[in-house]
Amino acid sequence: MGEYRPAKLDDVFNALSDPTRRAILARLTETDARVTELAAHFPISLNSVSKHIRLLERSGLVRRRVVGRDHLLSLEPAPLADAAEWIEHYRRFWEGRLAALEDFVKNRKRNRQ
Amino acid sequence: MGEYRPAKLDDVFNALSDPTRRAILARLTETDARVTELAAHFPISLNSVSKHIRLLERSGLVRRRVVGRDHLLSLEPAPLADAAEWIEHYRRFWEGRLAALEDFVKNRKRNRQ
Repeated sequence: MGEYRPAKLDDVFNALSDPTRRAILARLTETDARVTELAAHFPISLNSVSKHIRLLERSGLVRRRVVGRDHLLSLEPAPLADAAEWIEHYRRFWEGRLAALEDFVKNRKRNRQ
Repeated sequence: MGEYRPAKLDDVFNALSDPTRRAILARLTETDARVTELAAHFPISLNSVSKHIRLLERSGLVRRRVVGRDHLLSLEPAPLADAAEWIEHYRRFWEGRLAALEDFVKNRKRNRQ
């Protein structure tokens, strides 16, 4: 069915389906951050933020490095690229279909004149 | 937090997080289809396919037209474009950060020589 790494894409799109997780990713595009630093930006408990982060780690979108006592989080862009690739592949396909339909309509009009 | 139409994006990314729903969208990029035609392509019940389709409709990715006794489904590309835009925005941001870091490292090497 033209599936593209299905299991992994499930996790990545599911990770992206929550506004807190998208906001965490948005912050990590600016700078790497400690879990506590990230948590300070959200009006939810540290425990809730930690759960979102673990889900992001499982999806492969976020990587955790332990440096001394700090847990430093960084963005892993490859899964984002995979997700964008899936969407763009089908958008292009669909836009091609629209363009073909337009040509067909134009040609029919021209042949009638 | 740089959120982009959060509620809608939640639904779109959630819709994309399932392999059957992605496969339905993939088929609809090729041609509009009846619910029963789509269901014939999947090794799951018509009822399960219908549930996936309803979720796709709620996300705005699929539109249903009733033509006589047929329910004809077609792809609605705007929400796909929104999802792609969200991903690409942050990918570009992140890639900019990487490029700046590379420049910094190169300049430091050059200054040392």
